[in-house]
Amino acid sequence: MQQTKNIAIIGSGLVGSLLAIYLIKRGHEVTVFDRRKDVRTIEFSGRSINLAMSNRGWYALRKVGIEEEIRKIALPLDKRAMHVNEKPVYFQKYGKEGEAIFSISRGVLNRKMIDLAEEAGVVFKFEEKVWDINLAEATIFTGESEKSEWEEYQFDIVFGADGAFSRVRHKMQRQSRFNYSQFFIDVGYKELTIPANADGSHKLDNASFHIWPRGEFMLIAMPNLDGSFTCTLFLPFEGEVSFESIKTERDAETFFATYFPDIINDISNLTRDFFKNPTSAMVTMKCFPWTYYDKVALVGDSAHAIVPFYGQGMNAGFEDISVLDDLMEAYGDDWEHIFMEYQNLRKPNADAIAELSYRNFIEMSSKTANPEFLLRKKIEKHFSEKHPEHWIPLYSRVTFSDKPYADALAIGDQQRAIMDEVMKLEKIEQRWDSKEVENLILELLVKN
Amino acid sequence: MQQTKNIAIIGSGLVGSLLAIYLIKRGHEVTVFDRRKDVRTIEFSGRSINLAMSNRGWYALRKVGIEEEIRKIALPLDKRAMHVNEKPVYFQKYGKEGEAIFSISRGVLNRKMIDLAEEAGVVFKFEEKVWDINLAEATIFTGESEKSEWEEYQFDIVFGADGAFSRVRHKMQRQSRFNYSQFFIDVGYKELTIPANADGSHKLDNASFHIWPRGEFMLIAMPNLDGSFTCTLFLPFEGEVSFESIKTERDAETFFATYFPDIINDISNLTRDFFKNPTSAMVTMKCFPWTYYDKVALVGDSAHAIVPFYGQGMNAGFEDISVLDDLMEAYGDDWEHIFMEYQNLRKPNADAIAELSYRNFIEMSSKTANPEFLLRKKIEKHFSEKHPEHWIPLYSRVTFSDKPYADALAIGDQQRAIMDEVMKLEKIEQRWDSKEVENLILELLVKN
Repeated sequence: MQQTKNIAIIGSGLVGSLLAIYLIKRGHEVTVFDRRKDVRTIEFSGRSINLAMSNRGWYALRKVGIEEEIRKIALPLDKRAMHVNEKPVYFQKYGKEGEAIFSISRGVLNRKMIDLAEEAGVVFKFEEKVWDINLAEATIFTGESEKSEWEEYQFDIVFGADGAFSRVRHKMQRQSRFNYSQFFIDVGYKELTIPANADGSHKLDNASFHIWPRGEFMLIAMPNLDGSFTCTLFLPFEGEVSFESIKTERDAETFFATYFPDIINDISNLTRDFFKNPTSAMVTMKCFPWTYYDKVALVGDSAHAIVPFYGQGMNAGFEDISVLDDLMEAYGDDWEHIFMEYQNLRKPNADAIAELSYRNFIEMSSKTANPEFLLRKKIEKHFSEKHPEHWIPLYSRVTFSDKPYADALAIGDQQRAIMDEVMKLEKIEQRWDSKEVENLILELLVKN
Repeated sequence: MQQTKNIAIIGSGLVGSLLAIYLIKRGHEVTVFDRRKDVRTIEFSGRSINLAMSNRGWYALRKVGIEEEIRKIALPLDKRAMHVNEKPVYFQKYGKEGEAIFSISRGVLNRKMIDLAEEAGVVFKFEEKVWDINLAEATIFTGESEKSEWEEYQFDIVFGADGAFSRVRHKMQRQSRFNYSQFFIDVGYKELTIPANADGSHKLDNASFHIWPRGEFMLIAMPNLDGSFTCTLFLPFEGEVSFESIKTERDAETFFATYFPDIINDISNLTRDFFKNPTSAMVTMKCFPWTYYDKVALVGDSAHAIVPFYGQGMNAGFEDISVLDDLMEAYGDDWEHIFMEYQNLRKPNADAIAELSYRNFIEMSSKTANPEFLLRKKIEKHFSEKHPEHWIPLYSRVTFSDKPYADALAIGDQQRAIMDEVMKLEKIEQRWDSKEVENLILELLVKN
């Protein structure tokens, strides 16, 4: 049992509320500060891709005893549904029988997590803005504005769970020898909606993650419990076909009629929402260190914001918390040791999922409709089913495993090198399922 | 002729004062703000490696008519003097006959530049701290502290010349889609001094850049006008031999006696200065964009701080200013165009010199005493002297040229690939100056 600490968490998002539940169950006093309004009291804004909960996320929820509660608000998706123009929709299974990712609305999940934390005794202070932190003293300063009078709070430990633009990290960044990078991709996103049918049913298959890949851009859709789908359009900010080039309602209509004719009529208030909803940017943010002695630690996006193309942002943040919990179990009151181990264990994995997510951005938009890419996937799948002990596909290592992301990246690179060799075989498209190809892969696996 | 603008420059360092001189000579009203005291009124702190002015720096000074003034305070260094233990000192020429880099004390140069700017009519406001900038309005806010009353100034254009930890950039960084990285190396530095002989002469050859390479660390010394040398010790922060491991005066003495026995008695107040002078960190900082419409632009370290191992930090910053001046000449009052071209022209070159400087950090400390490395340099030199039209060494392309850094990097990489092939030849150490080697290089040059 740990000695009770008085702990502040900055940020009431998903990772902050999960951490709060873990800490209160370990007997600590927990106060969560958030500069925004209580998400339970407002309509959730159109700025969020739906979330895909997978293995690492479920594990962290299970470990603290709230998995069942969250299962109720999640819809399993066991496959991608690919919408290529002038072709029937086709499906790609994500994993083995019984493996699925789960679609959850960010707003619904966040409200539920805050309810659960509050029931467990966590104190939430909404609309209280943290402007400064004394790292060495674990003191935080809040107030109306940066220049107003500030209130001072003294804690034993402060966690920054305040997202990609974290104020806590901002303060750590002012120290010498703090490494930091933020890199924006040239693609933005915008949320749109496909409403439910009149009878409340979904307009598209609700056990699929729907993708309309179009080379430089794509549309995706994930189902909600109420029969609607949350759609996200990913599109370059500038260029020939881009957010910048779509200036009028008429431009927007033409764009959708040209590239997404099969879905244009299902999206509600298309042209109104297109201009009403914000266009958001996506960033990969890396930093180090993540902790300050036994006083301050960053968790989730504040330590490692990633682009959303592997569906692992929340899962990686939740895994931070389950790892922290393991370390609290192992090292008890030695918080400096807990924090040191935490950052050393997590940093390589955060870098790995950042890299994998960035690569998937390229893959999802440009390659998912490419015949060579599809053949690769078919060969991998064929071999993996025959030799599951020798070949777990990268997607499954990331999504349906609890092994480190860094291992998934390294093994994935080996697998890719092997597949590069395989794809060089003459007439591979005709003999992709031959014994010869199978033996070549087995041989290359031994060499690597 | 440009229309007169009211221009603020934040930062009175070398690049800020040079820019001020350029702008005032073009007829603008120029005010320079600096949060620090007037460098002319204080003793310069022991936190600066001596500067090495080379071609790009001189060009920028010449273009604005102040080269001769600065030549007076510079000492030419035409070679490296290598101090390897238990070997006599040996020399490596930097370039061709007549080519040299110039040692200048940062403090002396900065005072001179401010004098020249003030004489030309620039207004300096020292000890006035800029806390905020309204980018769209080119308004700056100054005051005692972040939370005190602020004074507001309205300008037409604001330049950030406020160094690696720029406040101006800090403000730009809060915008969406602003890319940024800061990466610290694990090596720190500390300044020490070799005083002049009693007769005012230098204790070491004063036309050489002195290096004591020791693998993981090194000492360098550059001459000053007064007969002294400014020494800089580069040493890892942590590890077996590191700043951290040198805890007592006795440790410091043992360290110098072990690794720098030939110079230990020449360094003044060695153990006192070792603990009195700060240990400083080194950072590579990259960002983009560098400008905000026609209102704000970053120059020098605030846009591209680099590690000091190529001696190009100031030269790269001065080149920013001569390029800006070319663009003012070309585009007149179209400041948005000037700024757009400026950042697009300079960014690839800033990235290239950052990369080259980082690589030189590895090279200077670990390779300058390595026989294979020295053989490479000998072969390159031999070939370059025979075929100057086919082979300009990388160092010369960076230091004695005004061609883009990005080209130097690219051509340098080709040359390295060629030298990798050459070094694979059997018994290369015996036939390094043979016709065969010469022909191989010529052949490989055609292929590349």
